Amino acid sequence: MNTIASASAVRKVHVPLGERAYDIMIGPGLIARAGSEIASRIKGRKAAVITDEHVAPLYLDALKASLDAAGIASADVVLPAGEKTKSFEHLINVCDKVLEARVERNDYVIALGGGVIGDLSGFAAGIVRRGVRFVQVPTSLLSQVDSSVGGKTGINSRHGKNLIGVFHQPDLVLADTDVLNSLSEREFRAGYAEVAKYGLIDKPDFFAWLENNWQAVFAGGSARIEAIAVSCQAKADVVVADERENGQRALLNLGHTFGHALEAATAYDSSRLVHGEGVSIGMVLAHEFSARMNLASPDDARRVEAHLKAVGLPTRMSEIPGTLPPAEMLMDAIAQDKKVKGGKLTFILTRGIGRSFVADDVPASEVISFLKEKHP
Amino acid sequence: MNTIASASAVRKVHVPLGERAYDIMIGPGLIARAGSEIASRIKGRKAAVITDEHVAPLYLDALKASLDAAGIASADVVLPAGEKTKSFEHLINVCDKVLEARVERNDYVIALGGGVIGDLSGFAAGIVRRGVRFVQVPTSLLSQVDSSVGGKTGINSRHGKNLIGVFHQPDLVLADTDVLNSLSEREFRAGYAEVAKYGLIDKPDFFAWLENNWQAVFAGGSARIEAIAVSCQAKADVVVADERENGQRALLNLGHTFGHALEAATAYDSSRLVHGEGVSIGMVLAHEFSARMNLASPDDARRVEAHLKAVGLPTRMSEIPGTLPPAEMLMDAIAQDKKVKGGKLTFILTRGIGRSFVADDVPASEVISFLKEKHP
Ligand SMILES: NC(=O)c1ccc[n+]([C@@H]2O[C@H](COP(=O)([O-])OP(=O)(O)OC[C@H]3O[C@@H](n4cnc5c(N)ncnc54)[C@H](O)[C@@H]3O)[C@@H](O)[C@H]2O)c1
Ligand SMILES: NC(=O)c1ccc[n+]([C@@H]2O[C@H](COP(=O)([O-])OP(=O)(O)OC[C@H]3O[C@@H](n4cnc5c(N)ncnc54)[C@H](O)[C@@H]3O)[C@@H](O)[C@H]2O)c1
Ligand SMILES: [Zn+2]
Ligand SMILES: [Zn+2]
Repeated sequence: MNTIASASAVRKVHVPLGERAYDIMIGPGLIARAGSEIASRIKGRKAAVITDEHVAPLYLDALKASLDAAGIASADVVLPAGEKTKSFEHLINVCDKVLEARVERNDYVIALGGGVIGDLSGFAAGIVRRGVRFVQVPTSLLSQVDSSVGGKTGINSRHGKNLIGVFHQPDLVLADTDVLNSLSEREFRAGYAEVAKYGLIDKPDFFAWLENNWQAVFAGGSARIEAIAVSCQAKADVVVADERENGQRALLNLGHTFGHALEAATAYDSSRLVHGEGVSIGMVLAHEFSARMNLASPDDARRVEAHLKAVGLPTRMSEIPGTLPPAEMLMDAIAQDKKVKGGKLTFILTRGIGRSFVADDVPASEVISFLKEKHP
Repeated sequence: MNTIASASAVRKVHVPLGERAYDIMIGPGLIARAGSEIASRIKGRKAAVITDEHVAPLYLDALKASLDAAGIASADVVLPAGEKTKSFEHLINVCDKVLEARVERNDYVIALGGGVIGDLSGFAAGIVRRGVRFVQVPTSLLSQVDSSVGGKTGINSRHGKNLIGVFHQPDLVLADTDVLNSLSEREFRAGYAEVAKYGLIDKPDFFAWLENNWQAVFAGGSARIEAIAVSCQAKADVVVADERENGQRALLNLGHTFGHALEAATAYDSSRLVHGEGVSIGMVLAHEFSARMNLASPDDARRVEAHLKAVGLPTRMSEIPGTLPPAEMLMDAIAQDKKVKGGKLTFILTRGIGRSFVADDVPASEVISFLKEKHP
């Protein structure tokens, strides 16, 4: 499945999901080419573009001009930026606008934005007329390397994040790497945590390459494209092996159990912690906990921490501004996220860099004493 | 695919959809057996039962007792009866209650009611946690022979009926034929129109059998069970051939193009017209129009009308209480439902009883002059 082509500056990763197969294009200038890329693959000639208030002034006109040039009529919806937009309220609004634009089953919804816009628009595309076509134009690093690939869509409920949604694969993903230049450094770093994650799951060479090349990835150019392409390929491989998340797809949650608990503990207040920062701290904790369980060497945890610290990501709970709740409450959040069966938890642990695995018998008592040590 | 077993009074129709395969059980006493039938097939032991205010006082306690006896814990939600319940407002409420009941991916939503409850609950089951299991306990004749089979779920939008939803197949359908005794005669007859439809699509012998046995079907007992089983089998066959409605599944819309136009023309006011009544008039119109196009004999149209009239269904537009809008406006409703391409419409026409087919080149001009004749 090594389908990364390097003929031009634009890389292509194919996601071979049978009749739901699709391409991910990664490289510069893709928004300007969006119309022709879409028109050459999908029959319909009507689109509803969903975006947010930060992205719209930067890229909406360029995207619409490109669609127009390809003979695609487009309506657009500009939503507030931020996680709160993943709600039923906005879903209803988007569905209504998509129907108003007379988007039929072979026409498409286009998500232009980060993971919030992608998750919400993909959900709308999955339920309008029981499914219309869907194109992702991810604009944040996180959405380019993670959320735009794999077909998970959804919104949040008062019972928790992403609890309402569908699996709805996109028909095409256009990751324009130029647009990352307008992303804040903090958001870029947060997305980078997910890039590093793919190395830590099962690509030790990629992790080593990142240790040597991360500055080039941050600077842009071919190293950035390479890092994004490897990440998309890694995610695609996992998705193809387990489309509906019944097993191995769980590996993608490396660092996320601790990370989610920290996000919950900071009430999803992005001024204190954004998702990728939680994942960064969570991955260090996962490596340290694995060392504590004598599964991996403490040197690996130190190496992971050193790299994430070098790129400017937080790696310790104590770096989160404000007061964190006590370890017991973090444990409650973990137990809710994961369900404890007979005192045992399912967790992504590791035997070393790039050697992660799904452990389904982690004693809750070990996790809590570990957390108390880390956050006395 | 002739899988109707006749060992006991309960019939079973298997729907062979690969990993989404399921059974439809049809017969007396199934609500009392629901707990054990479910427990023997599905792993989870938690259920959220969704029902309406008419059905709840009649059957909710019996269903819950049966679940309880099988060790299944259940929460319940009682909604207002009627088409208006197929809305985002109620969907949000149902999703919330399902999450509150801590229904996980192997637990289930149970729809206890007619097509309204089935469509709404199935949609909720399809999106909570990106899909939990789903059991249909259809209580109207229409839902037993039509809406509970096939996996179409959804709600209405201000842009039209059933425009928002997902395909989400049930894991089990339990059609308890006893509960039809409490259904109003009018609702029973409306459901019967769909039973007759299966004969008219491609089962001339079944239609002839209905002509001779309809009184026994209305009375209950084995003829009723037989009619429902044949109908479920017919629907299952079409669904298996075309799960996501890309082609032949359209045959199920025999009589529905005219029927939907009449429903729209009466503003979905059930005191004037319910769905099955619109389908009854629509099927007669479809046969008359086919005769007018020299495809079928006018005798077939007369035979269809005679039978539907005999069971007490309306067969003429003039029987609808109140004033209908002029033919031109009915035509507008048809054009909106179907989309006119170059003056041509897709329509289900027939070459005679049980010989329906999908025609995609019906001149709109012919339809309008036909309608003007029928409704001057
Ligand atoms: N579906 C999945 O598989 C999956 C996987 C991981 C995360 N997610 C979801 O993704 C969301 C997080 O995604 P995100 O980090 O992209 O969040 P986001 O969409 O909120 O984007 C982050 C911020 O960056 C801004 N932005 C985006 N692109 C920009 C650009 N090119 N220039 C300037 N500003 C830009 C946005 O307006 C926003 O303010 C979460 O809701 C998470 O649940 C989904
Ligand atoms: N999903 C599909 O494939 C599909 C197919 C056809 C129709 N539908 C949908 O089904 C709906 C119509 O279904 P319906 O006719 O069952 O409507 P319904 O659910 O409104 O039921 C009709 C009435 O009968 C009552 N009722 C139901 N069972 C009863 C019983 N045993 N005793 C006494 N009263 C009872 C209900 O409370 C309601 O008042 C429409 O919304 C239509 O769009 C869906
Ligand atoms: Zn993540
Ligand atoms: Zn119908």
